[in-house]
Amino acid sequence: MSVTAPAGFRAAASACGIKPEGLDIALLVAERTCTAAGVFTTNRAQAAPVVVAREHLAAGRARALVVNAGCANAATGARGLADAREMTALLAHQLGCPPAEVLVASTGVIGVHLPMQRVRAGIASALARLDRAGGDAAARAILTTDTRPKQTVVELRLGGESVRIGAMAKGSGMIAPHLATLLAFFTTDAAVEARLLREALRAAVGESLNRISVDGDTSTNDAAVILASGASAAPAILEPGRDHDAFRDALGEAARRIAGLIVRDGEGVTRVAEVRVEGARDADGADRIARTVAESALVKTALGGGDPNWGRVLAALGRAGVEVDMSGVNLYLGDVWVAEGGAVRDYDEAQARRAMLEDPVRIRIGLGEGSAAGWIWTCDLSRGYVEINAHYRS
Amino acid sequence: MSVTAPAGFRAAASACGIKPEGLDIALLVAERTCTAAGVFTTNRAQAAPVVVAREHLAAGRARALVVNAGCANAATGARGLADAREMTALLAHQLGCPPAEVLVASTGVIGVHLPMQRVRAGIASALARLDRAGGDAAARAILTTDTRPKQTVVELRLGGESVRIGAMAKGSGMIAPHLATLLAFFTTDAAVEARLLREALRAAVGESLNRISVDGDTSTNDAAVILASGASAAPAILEPGRDHDAFRDALGEAARRIAGLIVRDGEGVTRVAEVRVEGARDADGADRIARTVAESALVKTALGGGDPNWGRVLAALGRAGVEVDMSGVNLYLGDVWVAEGGAVRDYDEAQARRAMLEDPVRIRIGLGEGSAAGWIWTCDLSRGYVEINAHYRS
Repeated sequence: MSVTAPAGFRAAASACGIKPEGLDIALLVAERTCTAAGVFTTNRAQAAPVVVAREHLAAGRARALVVNAGCANAATGARGLADAREMTALLAHQLGCPPAEVLVASTGVIGVHLPMQRVRAGIASALARLDRAGGDAAARAILTTDTRPKQTVVELRLGGESVRIGAMAKGSGMIAPHLATLLAFFTTDAAVEARLLREALRAAVGESLNRISVDGDTSTNDAAVILASGASAAPAILEPGRDHDAFRDALGEAARRIAGLIVRDGEGVTRVAEVRVEGARDADGADRIARTVAESALVKTALGGGDPNWGRVLAALGRAGVEVDMSGVNLYLGDVWVAEGGAVRDYDEAQARRAMLEDPVRIRIGLGEGSAAGWIWTCDLSRGYVEINAHYRS
Repeated sequence: MSVTAPAGFRAAASACGIKPEGLDIALLVAERTCTAAGVFTTNRAQAAPVVVAREHLAAGRARALVVNAGCANAATGARGLADAREMTALLAHQLGCPPAEVLVASTGVIGVHLPMQRVRAGIASALARLDRAGGDAAARAILTTDTRPKQTVVELRLGGESVRIGAMAKGSGMIAPHLATLLAFFTTDAAVEARLLREALRAAVGESLNRISVDGDTSTNDAAVILASGASAAPAILEPGRDHDAFRDALGEAARRIAGLIVRDGEGVTRVAEVRVEGARDADGADRIARTVAESALVKTALGGGDPNWGRVLAALGRAGVEVDMSGVNLYLGDVWVAEGGAVRDYDEAQARRAMLEDPVRIRIGLGEGSAAGWIWTCDLSRGYVEINAHYRS
């Protein structure tokens, strides 16, 4: 059930004291150099590890990955960049590969320098434990405010041979959908040409990790990375076609599962909702409306209270910056049709209340203007979220 | 201290049972027809009273205003429009003026029809109490989740004569800066030509009510309206010039005071902050960054916790959708310079903590790219906000 489920990967973790307690360094190492791809935060404030990992992925190859939790190494200037590079160099030296084949990711507090002495010791200690069964430990080491590890494995058959995709991720705050919105690491023992691998990753992320929002805050450190070892017996995917489609679909399934795990483990979450917008003129508009509704503080607090306060959904829709004729809007909570032509219908309030207790709560908006659709998963805004984030650094 | 402070206005309130308890109908009536102007919500979901008031203001004239709290009369379709029109017609009939000279505003739950029998009784009852001292009662009658009435009076001299501007407002949730963001009513006994009045109102709102955000949710019912009775002895303002400037400045002062009162009485607010962006290439970019920072759930929870977690400010800045070179960004909390060139400086953490206890907390961002600036007032996101909004309708 982890990133070491596909053939050709080992992983390990160590606790080096970046976090007050628990594992905080994760290593993922392939037996041989993999094809690799990544997508990264669109935030203009990019953490040092994002800059370095993006650089190293330019050639579409990677051998290993080092991740730390507890410090984002963001807003750390030239020193932060040097620290991120040193992390890759340390691991590369031990593996005997070029530093450009090592990727790096960090998560935690912004604006604090990495305690590099601890990081060096942590990498050394983890290296000694690299194991085919190390995926679980690695998945725990990358967490911050998460309450549980997030992992999944998807199997598919290519050319009659079994192939696996493993995934692990962290993320429960600063989650908003703009490209990758968290740390998510995928492995596969399929052999996939680098450009096709990137294409599959982008498609998968676009229909999963980019469609979740906990708090509308896009992180400085978001990264989703995949390494393909080619260690399975399946034929290599070297061109578009049926195998590539199957692989992309399986990767999409893994990414959707990971996205679901993240939104369910969002900070302080007590309830999850799917906001679906249909009948839009274009997908951009549908997505923008879905996101605006999903990120409205008023919609999210009502969700937490189980209050079918659908007027807030209409109000959020109206301020989404999309040209919409409100008199054509229909709104459903679960299967309860609450508003027609932009105005209240004669609906059963008790049924609407029950719709707010479903898992997930389904908020469906019909615009009646075209055939494009969009969706997003979101969660409630609870006292728990406020408590976690009022004193995050304290 | 109220909208009846300027000469030529009477007001009254009544409790007709739209809210479970307390005053919920307010009337403001001028002795004679006034010049009048208004700005309204930019939300595409516009409440019925917004549609009607905008229509009635087209000629730049108004005699009276009727407001109800407890029901927004939004998402109520044709029936809602008819209800809003009836409210203006009822009052117009009693005053002997055309319905087009009566404005209407509503605030409260969206998607519920007005209980018109109660509204009719409430208007009749308030009419019987119209008084030169009725401003206070009217200011209380327009509140919803507000914890206190919001009023102010500004005096100025025009042509050697004293002129007053009175104001009352409601608003503590669904507050976000896009044109008027709440209900705010201004009166003046200055005589001001309608077009110049509108200009002054727009300028005043742009530097006050449009620069506050409680939760980033723009309401369906926002309206800011001014009535100028001309009942003072001051010469009429019929063209741009010194008198118009003085009037606009005084109106701006009244609007800023009202804006401050609203953000301080925001739902669950325990702390207020001013986010200022300087050195921007243009004012739009500065405003957009200030708003993104001010509305970030993570910045707002840190504000509540008194945690100088400035990395969240940089992260919000980076996702604001404005082209910014992060390596030129300086960040200050109060007088503490915490980040230079987009990266952490060697600052005193105890001083930064003290800066988070100031009132208001001052968050200042220097972009170093130009000379444009923008600002916004915001407040913390607290458990109180969550509690108020989880069960608003229940």
